[in-house]
Amino acid sequence: MLELRLLQGSLLKKVLEAIKDLVTDANFDCSATGFSLQAMDSSHVALVALLLRAEGFEHYRCDRNLSMGMNLNNMSKMLKCAGNDDIITIKADDGGDTVTFMFESPNQDKISDFEMKLMDIDSEHLGIPETEYEAIIRMPSQEFARICRDLSTIGDTVVISASKEGVKFSTKGDIGSANVVCRQNTSVDKPEDATVIEIQQPVSLTFALRYMNSFTKATPLSNTVTVSMSNELPVVVEYKIAEMGYIRFYLAPKIEEDEEVNS
Amino acid sequence: MLELRLLQGSLLKKVLEAIKDLVTDANFDCSATGFSLQAMDSSHVALVALLLRAEGFEHYRCDRNLSMGMNLNNMSKMLKCAGNDDIITIKADDGGDTVTFMFESPNQDKISDFEMKLMDIDSEHLGIPETEYEAIIRMPSQEFARICRDLSTIGDTVVISASKEGVKFSTKGDIGSANVVCRQNTSVDKPEDATVIEIQQPVSLTFALRYMNSFTKATPLSNTVTVSMSNELPVVVEYKIAEMGYIRFYLAPKIEEDEEVNS
Amino acid sequence: MLELRLLQGSLLKKVLEAIKDLVTDANFDCSATGFSLQAMDSSHVALVALLLRAEGFEHYRCDRNLSMGMNLNNMSKMLKCAGNDDIITIKADDGGDTVTFMFESPNQDKISDFEMKLMDIDSEHLGIPETEYEAIIRMPSQEFARICRDLSTIGDTVVISASKEGVKFSTKGDIGSANVVCRQNTSVDKPEDATVIEIQQPVSLTFALRYMNSFTKATPLSNTVTVSMSNELPVVVEYKIAEMGYIRFYLAPKIEEDEEVNS
Repeated sequence: MLELRLLQGSLLKKVLEAIKDLVTDANFDCSATGFSLQAMDSSHVALVALLLRAEGFEHYRCDRNLSMGMNLNNMSKMLKCAGNDDIITIKADDGGDTVTFMFESPNQDKISDFEMKLMDIDSEHLGIPETEYEAIIRMPSQEFARICRDLSTIGDTVVISASKEGVKFSTKGDIGSANVVCRQNTSVDKPEDATVIEIQQPVSLTFALRYMNSFTKATPLSNTVTVSMSNELPVVVEYKIAEMGYIRFYLAPKIEEDEEVNS
Repeated sequence: MLELRLLQGSLLKKVLEAIKDLVTDANFDCSATGFSLQAMDSSHVALVALLLRAEGFEHYRCDRNLSMGMNLNNMSKMLKCAGNDDIITIKADDGGDTVTFMFESPNQDKISDFEMKLMDIDSEHLGIPETEYEAIIRMPSQEFARICRDLSTIGDTVVISASKEGVKFSTKGDIGSANVVCRQNTSVDKPEDATVIEIQQPVSLTFALRYMNSFTKATPLSNTVTVSMSNELPVVVEYKIAEMGYIRFYLAPKIEEDEEVNS
Repeated sequence: MLELRLLQGSLLKKVLEAIKDLVTDANFDCSATGFSLQAMDSSHVALVALLLRAEGFEHYRCDRNLSMGMNLNNMSKMLKCAGNDDIITIKADDGGDTVTFMFESPNQDKISDFEMKLMDIDSEHLGIPETEYEAIIRMPSQEFARICRDLSTIGDTVVISASKEGVKFSTKGDIGSANVVCRQNTSVDKPEDATVIEIQQPVSLTFALRYMNSFTKATPLSNTVTVSMSNELPVVVEYKIAEMGYIRFYLAPKIEEDEEVNS
């Protein structure tokens, strides 16, 4: 039996909004340590990894490991019916073919049960090796989202170049070209406004803006985003989820188009 | 001659927004006692009854009974041109073929006259018998609207079941099922936040969510909604209009689908 | 070489939003005195004239007169990437085929360069004679925009009639007719809320609402609008740009339809 009670139900609503456009169907894996998901996007280019640790739930009961296949669009429809201040409980029976989302309003006046059919989804769980990244950029998540959105009005790909001084985002398209430079800046009033760049060596990689824009759907989950890059490795775009875990997006750099954009 | 001056013109704007999607053309009936309308929706399933009592107008002159056929979409277009703080006066001559809406801005700087052509509309006025209802639910209108909207993302019909403890809204669809329970609750800070259920005997009826969602367009008119139900009788969904009258929506329950949804 | 630094970059963003729907491609003319544009709309009915005086820029360098052909839609795409508090610098080399827009965030953390290709555009610069107008109406720009939008839900043309007492906007359409009268009013708390009418003699002219509605896209640039009319002359709808200059829209009155609407 599974029963996970999350006081801050809005977190789960935001998680679904962050990934439902990228991933159609996916298995949520539940174990004694947490509630997690790993899935490729439908075009098999980007990878999403979600972790919500058991300690983050007010009540966490998971008698045995369970993998629940869900259509994320349908799940999102149901979670949208939860109020932003509602407590959300996820319930399932071992071997059952449904999952129930229970929503409790803050004053307990209104209790909703939404039961959703589960699906059988083939998936293989990829081992993602821990890596030392050559460049790690931490910056305000809204700033990152704004830059990706702005550049995608000009071009299709972005070159992200990290150096000690700052990070540069560049694109090129039919109507012209654009460079946005964010300087390292730690003297800010609020720590989440800082732009911090840890560099082993300068890195410059090219990515499809379409995917970057998808990743920024997770912006409401966190004030900051961390972009970790190494040459010839997929970038990791990570949004922390308030003391509970994270969403990480992995995307391989574009090799050929890198040169084309810089030419 | 007809001349009705309404200080709170926004009420008339909201009335039109509440009914214009349900009813295309309708006769507004004007008598010494008030300004009223009764009309079936275009598919002849739901009935709307509107009453604005004479006492609610700052000035009310109606020399003889008048029935004015209006296209509600055109009337809404004109009323949208009134500011929210404008005074609205409805004027018509006996036997004329137009009606005039006059809008006065609060400081009298701007005076607008909108003249609309009247239509001949056949309509029979149904006598609606006063009934003792077995269950009367009074609840916050926004809560009711939210539940109808939420459930319509899952299914097409809603079963409304009233008992002493509370009211349950249920639906079922391809992706799963949902139950929302609102408990009786009178210990609230503001009286309009209360959920009050008066029960002679438990009632459970099934309705098309499409119509319920149409009715909730009246939500801006009132903080509370009253849902009155008896077995085998149309439900009445009523929104009071600030000391002036009401909009009532009548809808017959679905007989066959009731069982289907509960199966 | 050209280098124009505008502290209040949002002004340039608003200028583009004001004209990009009316004009597709246009030459921006740069001289020692200012940055200007004159262009017909794509159907060659309305004329736009923009002036941003050199004194309004924090830094203004223009070594020799330069005419730069730009696609306004593409220029707008780039300017949308500037933050509302950003400083915008326009840069170009003499004889170059590109223009660069540089955006600096208020705290200098983020510096963006957007380079756009220039176009060759044939255009003749019309001399617009200075005229004494018979009626000059100054009124709140939002009020003017609201009236044009409201009337366009009823009809296609507006008759603007100015007299000592006030200005009347009239239209007629299939569903009826409308008159909106704004009275002269100078006893207001804020000067920009005044409606002031200077009259040599009463004037009444008819215009296509489609163009009037296009002109009101400039509303965010100024709290007031000035409408100057003389019989048989194009109307001038002018929005001042905070101590820097103006946008003026010119539109010829409709001759035949004038009578038709008044009949």
